[in-house]
Formats: sequence, C-alpha cells, structure tokens
Amino acid sequence: MDYGAKSNDVVVSSRVRLARNIAGLPFPDKLSGEEEIYSVLMLGVEQAMSEITPCDFYKMHDIDPLYAQSLVENHLISKDLIGRQYSAVDIARSGDISVMINEEDHIRAQCIMPALDLDSAFEKIVRVDKAMSARLDYAFDPKYGYLTACPTNMGAGMRASFMAFLPALVLTDSINSVLSALQQLGVTARGVYGEGSGAQGFMYQLSNQAMIGASEEEILTRMKIIADKVIRNERIARGNLVKAAGLDLKDKIMRSYGILRHAVKLSSQEFMELLGYVKLGVILDYIDYKLEDIDKLITVSQPAMLCKREGKKLGAQERDIARAKLVRQQLAN
Amino acid sequence: MDYGAKSNDVVVSSRVRLARNIAGLPFPDKLSGEEEIYSVLMLGVEQAMSEITPCDFYKMHDIDPLYAQSLVENHLISKDLIGRQYSAVDIARSGDISVMINEEDHIRAQCIMPALDLDSAFEKIVRVDKAMSARLDYAFDPKYGYLTACPTNMGAGMRASFMAFLPALVLTDSINSVLSALQQLGVTARGVYGEGSGAQGFMYQLSNQAMIGASEEEILTRMKIIADKVIRNERIARGNLVKAAGLDLKDKIMRSYGILRHAVKLSSQEFMELLGYVKLGVILDYIDYKLEDIDKLITVSQPAMLCKREGKKLGAQERDIARAKLVRQQLAN
Repeated sequence: MDYGAKSNDVVVSSRVRLARNIAGLPFPDKLSGEEEIYSVLMLGVEQAMSEITPCDFYKMHDIDPLYAQSLVENHLISKDLIGRQYSAVDIARSGDISVMINEEDHIRAQCIMPALDLDSAFEKIVRVDKAMSARLDYAFDPKYGYLTACPTNMGAGMRASFMAFLPALVLTDSINSVLSALQQLGVTARGVYGEGSGAQGFMYQLSNQAMIGASEEEILTRMKIIADKVIRNERIARGNLVKAAGLDLKDKIMRSYGILRHAVKLSSQEFMELLGYVKLGVILDYIDYKLEDIDKLITVSQPAMLCKREGKKLGAQERDIARAKLVRQQLAN
Repeated sequence: MDYGAKSNDVVVSSRVRLARNIAGLPFPDKLSGEEEIYSVLMLGVEQAMSEITPCDFYKMHDIDPLYAQSLVENHLISKDLIGRQYSAVDIARSGDISVMINEEDHIRAQCIMPALDLDSAFEKIVRVDKAMSARLDYAFDPKYGYLTACPTNMGAGMRASFMAFLPALVLTDSINSVLSALQQLGVTARGVYGEGSGAQGFMYQLSNQAMIGASEEEILTRMKIIADKVIRNERIARGNLVKAAGLDLKDKIMRSYGILRHAVKLSSQEFMELLGYVKLGVILDYIDYKLEDIDKLITVSQPAMLCKREGKKLGAQERDIARAKLVRQQLAN
C-alpha cells in the first residue's frame, strides 16, 4: 500500500544514504597529510553537486562550532563529522541533499524527504551518485560491491531509513516486541539524533542493517514493506489506545499542550516528551495544528538552533528559557 | 493601617458571626418535639431579617440535599446544619447575611464581606442582632454574657474571622511558625471549608478563639491587628519568594495556568493547588485576571455547584470532567 504524503502521521521523513570511497585512498580514519588527494575528492563532490542543485560547501575546520552543531540538529551532517581531519560537507540549498566528505567513508551522500517517500529520496541521491562517479574513481569490487570502511556497509553501500512517530506502540507497551520483531527483519531502531540518542518524543529512526549482497532496489523494497507494517501497527495501536485510555489520554495530551503553551523553562527532554503528546493530540484532532509545524519545532528548539535564534551562546539554563519562549511563540501562531 | 479593598491580595473575605440562644429553650442538641416553640424562633428570625433585607427562608428538611450542599459551598450554612432537627436558614438575597437556626446554637447569624472589612461585617450583623433581639428573648447573663451551647462562645458570643491567601508563607516554609505565633495570640487556623478541611490553595481561615469577657469591639480590634500582621508577613514573604525563587516560581505558576486552561479532568484537590499558584501569578502580574474572578472559581467549582450547573447529579469522575470544563471556560474569558 502506498500511503504517500498521507503517511506523515507515522512517518516523519525518509532518508537514503550512500557510502562511497575513492579507489587507492586510505579510509578517512587512516588518512595522512596528502592534501592534494583530498582536494581532488572535495572538488569532485562540489562540482558534481553544483551540476545538480545550488549548494553550499563547508570545510568543517572553517565553520563556527555553533553552526556545525546546527547542521547536526538539522540532520545535514553527523556529529561524528565535526572534528574529523579534512572533513567537509556540501549541502543543497533546498535542504534535502547533503554530501559529507571524510566522515567514516570518503563520501556519505544522503537525501531526506518528508513523510514516507523512500523512492524520491533514492532517485535524488542516485543522480548525485552518478554525477560524482563521473568525476571520482570509486572503490568498487565486482564481487563485494562498493568497499566501505565498515564491512556492514559493503555491497550497495546504501542505507534506507525512516523516522517513525510511534506513540501508541509506546503507550500500549507494544514497542519492545515490535522493535525486536523488526530487528529480526534486519531493521535497527535509533533515537531522533542517531546512534546512542534515546527515543524521545515517541520518535524512532528505523534503518536497514547490513544487507551484504542485496541490491539498492531490494533494500528499498524491504524498507517500504517494513514502513508499511510499522504504519499499520501504529495505527491499530492508536485505535486501541483511544478506546482503552480515552479521557486519560486526552487529559494527558491537553495538559502537555497547556504546559508547552505557558512554561517559562523547558529542558530538551521534557520538551520532546510533551511535544510527543501534543503531536498525538494533533493526529487525534484534539488540537489544531499542521503536523509539519509540530515536527519543525523539534529542530528549531535544539541547542545550537536556539543559540542562532538568540544571536549568542547560551548556557543550559538560558537554553531552557529560550526553548520555552520559542515554543510559546510558535504554538501561539 | 487600613488596607480596605486593597487588602484582597491577602484577605479574601471577612466574616463576623454571632451565636444566640433563646432563654428557657434547651440547646439544639437537646431539643425534643415541642414544635410551637421552634415556630416562634423561626418566625422571629424571619421577621427580623425581612425588616432588614429581602431574604429566602428554608427549613432544612424541605430542601433538596444538593441545594443544601451548594449553600455549604457558598459559606451560607455549615455542613453541620444539614440533618439537624428543626434546622433552618434565612439567607439575604444579597448573599452577605445568613442566619442559621438550630445549628449548635438556636441562632447563628453571620455576615461575610469581601476583602478585609470586619467593621462592615460587624455593623451589618449587629443590625440583624438588634432586630432579632426585639422579637426573641435571648439567653443572657449579666455576668457571663450570651449563653451558648459551647462555653468557648460565651460572652460576646461573637467570632470574627477572615480568609487569608498565604502562598508565600507556605512556599517559604514560614507558615507553621506564623500559625503557631497566631495561636498564641488566640487565633485558630482552618481550611477554606471550616474545621477539619485541610488548607488547600494556600487558603487559611483565621478566627478568634475563646475570648470570654472580651467585648465585641475588643474582639474586632484584636482581629484587625492580627489581619494587619498577617498581611504584612505575607507581603514580605512574597518579596523574598520572588527574589529567591524567581524564574522557578514563575515557571510553576505558568505551568499551573497552562494545565488549568487545558486539562480535561481536574480533581478538587489538584484544582485548588493549581488555582493557588494562578492566583499568586495574578497578584505578581504574570497573568491578567481579576482576583475576585479567581476567588469565585473556587466556589463555582465545588461539587454541588457543578451538579447544579450541569443540571444533574454527577459522580466523582464526572465532576472532575465538569470542573475542568468550567475552569477552561471561565479562564478563557
């Protein structure tokens, strides 16, 4: 079943990421000071990307740390990229495509699309990949496929993932059994901000694990089936939850909303929890907002984004105040 | 110092209550079936009151229990009056004066005024007392004064009290030392709904204990001095509280407000606690409401008042829902 844009009550965004490396060049962890080669790599990426879409290219050691952090918060780079040697990123101004250079692999190219739309994300990133491969000599083995720093990425060198909002599975205590079933299907769950970040606000990033030997199309098909299952499960759980918890749930949702509308201080963790309930309230038609606006709030209320907005570095307590202010303003609209 | 109406940030209302008994008639607890005498008592009260102000007279065994309960919630009768034999009440339509018949004493006449205004309450109830004494033969002893069922009321047979809102004394942990100091000055503290009701929403009803031999004026003067002390103490504590708790306090207040504005269910106890914070927020200019409207919310959200408003008997859970609905509506205005 193709939910398309109608899937955004469960799937926030879809992402396809390719890992590519340059033949004959040591993997980034083993890079030594042969600057010329990195220049070729960077230039190749920059030219390929600019052929496709207007971009901004940043060498990581040139960027303000706060700005780098805001790129992490916008899911445009990984935290790991910051501080790596010769690391850089090329970002489409449209915000959907970014190519990291010298993260774990020489090239990590990703496209993120709203809701469940792995096909579009795949098509877009394939165009980038083609443009890059025309300029760069990929490390590719006819038997093993694309060679990558971590063997789990070998083969298609592709990871497909989607961000899922699973409040009902959490609140009906079904999430663990669903996640372990997914694991058996080769799907890993992470929090909103990648490996190690807990699942906050009922959000889970689900991605394919190692699929050595699988083609891009197989990975894509697999993840679309997974998404379909997850969407069905969550929606059924929502129906059950509303039947079972009814007024208690609505009360919890409306109180969460009331607190977000009026609090003077909000920690990141509390904010994510309350917003998770409010988002569920929007889905259940208790509260009138656009889902996209609720999702955007998560990004703009991250630490570095708050500092950018306030135009200065903020301590933890100041961020909690700035976050509460921003949330009050945004929800008042 | 005379705060007058400006005292209502601390003193919600002032009350003067007189206890009177009829000479030769057994105290209510010992009444037996001599109906004629009670008719004389009731008629005397009714005529005296109607001379002063338009009234409604109710024999307690005639009233709907829910309506009786709503009179308790409006502080017009004591809970104790309901179910007593030959009990009745005459209530001024203006809502400030009520005379209970055959509660602990044959007559308990009270006047409640908003804010700190013991003088007006006293003047009004003295007029009622005079009109009654012209028709009824009070039990009065030249040495002991008015005779009452409980010896602690003997003498002037008068109790002066005021309802105080003391959030800062509570939140700075000073309330217990203040209350024990008041006790040494002959002042008893109770909750909003009299003896045995806990202090909810930072509200304390402070009244004079036994003052045998003291005149009405002495009692009045004493309680006005007490009120003055309490007002000063609370206001100083507020200043300290804002300095010390600043943003944490404001956050707690605004969250309480957010919950009251949006909750779907509110127990009586939680409501009182949250409203206490909101009232403090109004006083501190964080929230824009009239204090009187906040105080009125306490009465209209009581169980029987909620049933009256919804036009039917409500179970505990239904009341919590009706209370939340009412509070949302009232605070939205």
